[in-house]
Amino acid sequence: MKNIAILGSTGSIGTTALKVIEANPEQYRVVALAAGGNTAVIRSQIEKFQPLCAALLEESDANVLKAQLRERLGTKVFFGTEGFVRIATLAEADTVLSAMSGAAGLLPTYEAIKAGKHIALANKETMVMAGPIIMAEAKKQGVSILPIDSEHCAILQSLQGHPREDLRRVILTASGGPFKDFSIKEMVSVTPALALKHPNWDMGRKISVDSATLMNKGLETIEAKWFFDLRMDQISILIHPQSIIHSMVEYKDGSIVAQLGIPDMITPISYALSYPRHMETLLPPLQLERIGRLTFEKPDLKRFPCLALALMASEIGDSMPAVLNGANEIAVGSFLNNEIGFLEIPALIEKIMDAHKPFPIEDFAHVMEADRWARKKAMEYLQERKHRNP
Amino acid sequence: MKNIAILGSTGSIGTTALKVIEANPEQYRVVALAAGGNTAVIRSQIEKFQPLCAALLEESDANVLKAQLRERLGTKVFFGTEGFVRIATLAEADTVLSAMSGAAGLLPTYEAIKAGKHIALANKETMVMAGPIIMAEAKKQGVSILPIDSEHCAILQSLQGHPREDLRRVILTASGGPFKDFSIKEMVSVTPALALKHPNWDMGRKISVDSATLMNKGLETIEAKWFFDLRMDQISILIHPQSIIHSMVEYKDGSIVAQLGIPDMITPISYALSYPRHMETLLPPLQLERIGRLTFEKPDLKRFPCLALALMASEIGDSMPAVLNGANEIAVGSFLNNEIGFLEIPALIEKIMDAHKPFPIEDFAHVMEADRWARKKAMEYLQERKHRNP
Repeated sequence: MKNIAILGSTGSIGTTALKVIEANPEQYRVVALAAGGNTAVIRSQIEKFQPLCAALLEESDANVLKAQLRERLGTKVFFGTEGFVRIATLAEADTVLSAMSGAAGLLPTYEAIKAGKHIALANKETMVMAGPIIMAEAKKQGVSILPIDSEHCAILQSLQGHPREDLRRVILTASGGPFKDFSIKEMVSVTPALALKHPNWDMGRKISVDSATLMNKGLETIEAKWFFDLRMDQISILIHPQSIIHSMVEYKDGSIVAQLGIPDMITPISYALSYPRHMETLLPPLQLERIGRLTFEKPDLKRFPCLALALMASEIGDSMPAVLNGANEIAVGSFLNNEIGFLEIPALIEKIMDAHKPFPIEDFAHVMEADRWARKKAMEYLQERKHRNP
Repeated sequence: MKNIAILGSTGSIGTTALKVIEANPEQYRVVALAAGGNTAVIRSQIEKFQPLCAALLEESDANVLKAQLRERLGTKVFFGTEGFVRIATLAEADTVLSAMSGAAGLLPTYEAIKAGKHIALANKETMVMAGPIIMAEAKKQGVSILPIDSEHCAILQSLQGHPREDLRRVILTASGGPFKDFSIKEMVSVTPALALKHPNWDMGRKISVDSATLMNKGLETIEAKWFFDLRMDQISILIHPQSIIHSMVEYKDGSIVAQLGIPDMITPISYALSYPRHMETLLPPLQLERIGRLTFEKPDLKRFPCLALALMASEIGDSMPAVLNGANEIAVGSFLNNEIGFLEIPALIEKIMDAHKPFPIEDFAHVMEADRWARKKAMEYLQERKHRNP
């Protein structure tokens, strides 16, 4: 029996994870839930799973939830970052499923590792911003960090049983997003509504935009580097619009081992929970004869500058990936609020990166400093821009 | 250092294996070579690798070879089945690479296993005809039998590190051969020359015809059953004309692990020799972005009755797969001699199978009995046919 705490239980990954857990009540027990502000959803989750604790971001939401919960459930309700950290470090939890979106998930995940919890990691920012200290802390505590992400799950599966020293490179596949074949001209007028329509995956808003800019693939490349201890020149990116081959590993003899499947987060979630076992799922089997064809092409870094920026940030290293990530979060938020255009996302990030003097990431404070600096700088830039084009 | 004896050193697999060994002189040493009757090729192989022993099928060829070899090499030359068995059981060999084509490879391979040699197995007939006794003997002797075959190598690679009890099914891929899209009418007039042109693989004559009839895939299905201890309902066949995904394994969660690569026997040969390591090869890396697309379709058992016959023989079990194999060898030989038409291959096999009363395969004598019976019956049928259509 694994005791699981979920950070981000009301989001897309969190709700899917709860379905997987619900289908396997003998193997998994939910001991804690944390979410942003969706009190209605977390309330029904608490009623179903009866965890020991729950947390919401705002004190007022937490108070509403407390009032609504029937006393007899006995679920303690916390709030704020402190509340999230309580959930992440709960003595009764042995595994923390980290699925809060954005930089908010970073601190609780780091605290969970320090408390000796195994991590099932869906939160990209944790690795992108703080890869070196996260991996060092996990090693120190002897805990595993397993990816909840179809690409990294595929890499993990393709590494099983093959000697690590025989690895030649990892090939991350990318759908190419909804604007794969758009010209730069066509991208200028892309709206948030258009960017939110991903061809293969049903995801949250921020990650949908990241998929459209290919920033998501860039962040995944940085993650892969830390997850699997790779050099950047050992990671290739391949556009594969059908999202069936989730990623691959090439070995020294030219053999490529890959993991394929229908695009559904149930697979990486269940693999991260049951690793190295494969648990029974209710997903329909992949029928390649029905899909008929899989296609592949090179990514175009010119039309997708966010990918180039992410690769560059990773090459530079130090605080630069955290700055890239912070600037991207501000830029995407601004795009989703209809404040800037689609192509202004990479333009903004590039400006912030240009202005940044990278410093080493040696502890958690450095990560937060880089993140704060990037966000502040990005906000300032957006303010200036507003003054220029009111 | 592995000491290797090669059965079938002058054939397509044998010569490629020698290239792999030549490129890795610190890891592998050739201690013995055996071939059918290509004295010129085996002579130059002996001069290069200086094995302890060699063998040819005919005494006269062996004598020619002896006379040609310079005394100082000290390579002992044997002949006949007895000579092949000497090579296969040589005290100095620890691994026997079994690459003789057809039923001739069976006995030496079986004797090698009994002598405690590890086997790298390219000879399909060994498993098809004698699967149960081969696997039982290998278990008894504690030796490994590793496949030299792109499909089974892919399955082996896709099984590494994944719990066997989580396997749902194996998906064997098939190029579909040169007549994949032929109508039955078009197949009637197929000539040996046409059948020998395989789209992706450069192979021997017999196996090229087996690829054209899809009998090769049927034999591989039977092999897979024994190699990986599968039930027939755990093996699916998928037509994939580009021969890039060499085969796949589906697990309970819907994950499919696959091995991909350029179609070149160097990969399965080197993996069988270095398993579970991947040795450096000089193969160019697979570039999926250049290949562009991979396609998939269901096999058509109506147009390819050889495949249906093989699956049926495997379902029936006992002596039937050996009978299928014996009848197929005679039929393919007859087709290659322009004696029967392409579609008469399955017709002949079906007649022999219909006439056969299966008996259990409990020892090697039973295997040989089934083989002899099938060949005799097939020859009789061909004689009758000649009388009917002189």
